[in-house]
Amino acid sequence: MQHTIGVIMGSDNDMEIMKEAVTTLREFGLKAEVIVSSAHRTPERTIEWARTARERGLKAIIVGAGAAAHLAGVVSAKTTLPVVGVPIDATSLGGLDALLSTVQMPGGVPVASMAIGKAGAKNAGIYVAMIIGTFDPEVAAKLDAFKKDMADKVIEKSRRIEQEWNV
Amino acid sequence: MQHTIGVIMGSDNDMEIMKEAVTTLREFGLKAEVIVSSAHRTPERTIEWARTARERGLKAIIVGAGAAAHLAGVVSAKTTLPVVGVPIDATSLGGLDALLSTVQMPGGVPVASMAIGKAGAKNAGIYVAMIIGTFDPEVAAKLDAFKKDMADKVIEKSRRIEQEWNV
Amino acid sequence: MQHTIGVIMGSDNDMEIMKEAVTTLREFGLKAEVIVSSAHRTPERTIEWARTARERGLKAIIVGAGAAAHLAGVVSAKTTLPVVGVPIDATSLGGLDALLSTVQMPGGVPVASMAIGKAGAKNAGIYVAMIIGTFDPEVAAKLDAFKKDMADKVIEKSRRIEQEWNV
Amino acid sequence: MQHTIGVIMGSDNDMEIMKEAVTTLREFGLKAEVIVSSAHRTPERTIEWARTARERGLKAIIVGAGAAAHLAGVVSAKTTLPVVGVPIDATSLGGLDALLSTVQMPGGVPVASMAIGKAGAKNAGIYVAMIIGTFDPEVAAKLDAFKKDMADKVIEKSRRIEQEWNV
Amino acid sequence: MQHTIGVIMGSDNDMEIMKEAVTTLREFGLKAEVIVSSAHRTPERTIEWARTARERGLKAIIVGAGAAAHLAGVVSAKTTLPVVGVPIDATSLGGLDALLSTVQMPGGVPVASMAIGKAGAKNAGIYVAMIIGTFDPEVAAKLDAFKKDMADKVIEKSRRIEQEWNV
Amino acid sequence: MQHTIGVIMGSDNDMEIMKEAVTTLREFGLKAEVIVSSAHRTPERTIEWARTARERGLKAIIVGAGAAAHLAGVVSAKTTLPVVGVPIDATSLGGLDALLSTVQMPGGVPVASMAIGKAGAKNAGIYVAMIIGTFDPEVAAKLDAFKKDMADKVIEKSRRIEQEWNV
Amino acid sequence: MQHTIGVIMGSDNDMEIMKEAVTTLREFGLKAEVIVSSAHRTPERTIEWARTARERGLKAIIVGAGAAAHLAGVVSAKTTLPVVGVPIDATSLGGLDALLSTVQMPGGVPVASMAIGKAGAKNAGIYVAMIIGTFDPEVAAKLDAFKKDMADKVIEKSRRIEQEWNV
Amino acid sequence: MQHTIGVIMGSDNDMEIMKEAVTTLREFGLKAEVIVSSAHRTPERTIEWARTARERGLKAIIVGAGAAAHLAGVVSAKTTLPVVGVPIDATSLGGLDALLSTVQMPGGVPVASMAIGKAGAKNAGIYVAMIIGTFDPEVAAKLDAFKKDMADKVIEKSRRIEQEWNV
Repeated sequence: MQHTIGVIMGSDNDMEIMKEAVTTLREFGLKAEVIVSSAHRTPERTIEWARTARERGLKAIIVGAGAAAHLAGVVSAKTTLPVVGVPIDATSLGGLDALLSTVQMPGGVPVASMAIGKAGAKNAGIYVAMIIGTFDPEVAAKLDAFKKDMADKVIEKSRRIEQEWNV
Repeated sequence: MQHTIGVIMGSDNDMEIMKEAVTTLREFGLKAEVIVSSAHRTPERTIEWARTARERGLKAIIVGAGAAAHLAGVVSAKTTLPVVGVPIDATSLGGLDALLSTVQMPGGVPVASMAIGKAGAKNAGIYVAMIIGTFDPEVAAKLDAFKKDMADKVIEKSRRIEQEWNV
Repeated sequence: MQHTIGVIMGSDNDMEIMKEAVTTLREFGLKAEVIVSSAHRTPERTIEWARTARERGLKAIIVGAGAAAHLAGVVSAKTTLPVVGVPIDATSLGGLDALLSTVQMPGGVPVASMAIGKAGAKNAGIYVAMIIGTFDPEVAAKLDAFKKDMADKVIEKSRRIEQEWNV
Repeated sequence: MQHTIGVIMGSDNDMEIMKEAVTTLREFGLKAEVIVSSAHRTPERTIEWARTARERGLKAIIVGAGAAAHLAGVVSAKTTLPVVGVPIDATSLGGLDALLSTVQMPGGVPVASMAIGKAGAKNAGIYVAMIIGTFDPEVAAKLDAFKKDMADKVIEKSRRIEQEWNV
Repeated sequence: MQHTIGVIMGSDNDMEIMKEAVTTLREFGLKAEVIVSSAHRTPERTIEWARTARERGLKAIIVGAGAAAHLAGVVSAKTTLPVVGVPIDATSLGGLDALLSTVQMPGGVPVASMAIGKAGAKNAGIYVAMIIGTFDPEVAAKLDAFKKDMADKVIEKSRRIEQEWNV
Repeated sequence: MQHTIGVIMGSDNDMEIMKEAVTTLREFGLKAEVIVSSAHRTPERTIEWARTARERGLKAIIVGAGAAAHLAGVVSAKTTLPVVGVPIDATSLGGLDALLSTVQMPGGVPVASMAIGKAGAKNAGIYVAMIIGTFDPEVAAKLDAFKKDMADKVIEKSRRIEQEWNV
Repeated sequence: MQHTIGVIMGSDNDMEIMKEAVTTLREFGLKAEVIVSSAHRTPERTIEWARTARERGLKAIIVGAGAAAHLAGVVSAKTTLPVVGVPIDATSLGGLDALLSTVQMPGGVPVASMAIGKAGAKNAGIYVAMIIGTFDPEVAAKLDAFKKDMADKVIEKSRRIEQEWNV
Repeated sequence: MQHTIGVIMGSDNDMEIMKEAVTTLREFGLKAEVIVSSAHRTPERTIEWARTARERGLKAIIVGAGAAAHLAGVVSAKTTLPVVGVPIDATSLGGLDALLSTVQMPGGVPVASMAIGKAGAKNAGIYVAMIIGTFDPEVAAKLDAFKKDMADKVIEKSRRIEQEWNV
């Protein structure tokens, strides 16, 4: 069975960052339902999309937003699906504004914040795979393979560095 | 004619700060419609309240919120009334999270941020009086008187300090 | 009736940012009275300009300044018109200095701070339209149209992203 | 079927904060396996606990840590279960150190960060319920009830504030 | 000849901090002209006081202010006397707002910032003595004595610590 | 009589910034004694230079340093001349490290901090002119002229902006 | 053979924090030579103490200082012994000033920074034991025992928490 | 006798910074054992490398890592050798995340933090030479020469600046 994950962002400019999430989801055999919708410019559309997320069959939602990043919180307000927030560095403050706006959610309406920017978007994809992997052994197995592959690459890169520098 | 101003906050705990706004509005002859409603816990109620604010006759809206303070942005998304945000110091970060979440609004949906905490709540009341004073000369006159009174108090306080220290 | 809005900035370099405010005002049928005047280099001129703003017919004032951005506060000290501050990123601190200097006004003399930089300057224009829209239904109607247009654009951009990515 | 969630913290002092997570898990019918184990003082024990978490039947892991909060990252390194981090305010920097150490994970090894402190610990419990609710309809139903209850309480609190202030 | 130094602060609450400056000035035989006057509440009075400072015989000006601390900049705008700013910790941001508002002055209108709070107020007094000591050998001699006394006290305190701990 | 001002910096790279101070001093008819000497790499040379500054006839000292900027403090420790510090943006922290290292001096050994970078270096030159202007009417007159010229330039720039935008 | 370690602090107030370092050194059989001496108030004494540290037989130096914490840098400038800095939270900025002043040393003159406050002071003692343990097997053995003891305590504390919460 | 120092980094990208450490070690006649190994991607390999560091004959360990920089802490957890951490500026936060993750270690497991980036990497090499120099007079002598050479270079650079500017 293929699981579908919502990927929502406040602006089409954010796709540059958020495609890391989408391509990572695909690596784990997960399907993405991508949408641009703003907490502020299209609030009803956002809310309706979030409210019906579970009944449309979504299993989790990844949200990318910059500046006063309210989108993840607004989505989380309207669903009981796990929401993963990706703060985007979109202002002169290096993403600190987006990080605090995403992570400092008050008690009752959690958002799971990833790191600022591309690393965070990629990790959002992996994290959702972990959520799915809690009950889908196939995805869990892919995560094991991913972890092994990641370790192998580090060792390979280390070998090159070691050969150049440990003479 | 008496103007009514919406005063909304995310939690009843915020009233400790936001009463500064309400009592200040009253000093300028403005009426407050106070409500507790959260961007995250009662999103529809908040949105409905904001959406109908103008038709209910509200002239402006003051919003108090702490932590990842999304409330002012969510209200501004649903109204064309001027929204004044008061960041509240509600976490271990001294209100920096609430300030950035309130002020760093993306282009298109402005929120006017005041200072963090009580000074900000008081100023929100005065600022709304300034908005009203743009077209209501009575309120404008009260602002003139307020400014004069404020200056007089400074001079009075200065006199006491001067007498004690300039000997 | 056409309303005039003061737009003041501390340096002509700031015009690069502040033209966002001016062009936005014009989109809403508002006229801008633009001036360069510094809180520190030409204090009397600034103060005189602010003191006579209301009698010259201005309805609100937009202020752009960077670094230790005192200009909005100094203007607000001499008028009861609503002052909207735009912190400008003009130093190595990413505009944090200008933001705190603009927003952390003490009780009694409010400045309404927008976001740092271009988004803030654009929002300053919209925010003033909201202030005017409180009593001028024509401007209020333009705001409604603006909000609708903004939402339409998001949906259009979403369509393009969706077509590319939801295959 | 009762699901078990790992709750690990670096120091027994952290229990003051982390009991919010445990009691919240119980509200959703989830069982907590609580342990104190440090990334730095008992690294092997921590790693072994994390490595065997899935085979012991754990469904997700909540991690609380302060200062240079490495614990969530170290746990995530050894499991493919979703890890939820709670940054704890344990130094003179207000928890900013713990937040950045928890959330800024490099690509490949995600940690889902909650807010700093008690709100974050409570939300960690709710968030895990959301993860479980992805495949367990019973927990999902409890989340719906929780959301409704939370909204009801806001409305009730609002009523009291409204009665006192909207006279 | 006795030199007089202006000491101005934005609020009488600041006297708690600024008396450190006044008493330090007196230790160096300098006279203080203390006044409470705000950049925002009594701008003309402040400006007039600053404008006439030199002709009244003042030799330098110490300014204490908190929050969006504009006072030192406004004073410096109206005088060519050296202005020494003391940022006061008056909000939830630990004085970072006052520090940046005081120190980040744009080119052309300098303010010399001291440290935040009491240490800064005391140092403002000493710094003014250094300014005066540039041309008044008597004050310069007092500074030499002060430096020697300060060193002696460190050595005395060290002795007590050494006796207790180096056994 | 021509006054000489010490200008010391920790690295020759800092000259790029500090030449603003030197050329500004010259505009006011002051002579600069420029030296590169580090608090850490050449401590004795630095200390000897500072210790003998007054007897060599220096009237004030301008210090430029980046990173953990100790140089101004070390110089101030060995002289009773007024020391003006210029924090230089030399690391990835935007000069915040240099600013705090320069300005947060403990009670007893003041350093007068200017803004970070070029604006600060220029202002250091002007500030020293203000110090000299306390007792040298010629320099004070030049400051008056400088202030007038600065104001004229603002008005001129404003004229160009006004002509382009107030149509 | 007993090794002696220098422990220097800028003020006797810092002893409250720095005694953690001294008592920790003693736990590892190391002797402390404690002194109060300031980079700014007693620079020559500090420099002389640092310059002769190695010839007096010291093996390493622990330095505690707050605010613009220059002491560790000044000591490191005059010795080739390893210097361990402890930033002390002594101002309204939570020790961020002391941390950056201690850690951001320019290339050529390293200071090894520990955490802010008591944890940092304790770790300074342990770290010096690690330095000594590089060549003294007895101290290395004590470090092994210390590490084991620390782990045992965590396990013991965990047991109590587990018994109370895992029922 | 030639001493070997471990140099470990989380990613091969970090070598760009960390080669400063390696080349500096070589300047002091120390040998580097370079390896790429991550706290999160290859935890066992990292731990095994750290655990056996002393028995392989390493005398100290230099660790470079960015973002949520856990590597130095994880290495320190498994060895009693002195660990020197180099925070790397690898995200949009200018290295503040890496600095706090490296330096704010809890009591019991110290990491000695250097400055962010290249200056820190170079200083890590020098600092390790200082550690070795505690018991190896040859390295101590090289440090004396290094310090002298560094001072000479400052004086030479000063000469050029002085000739150009002190005319």
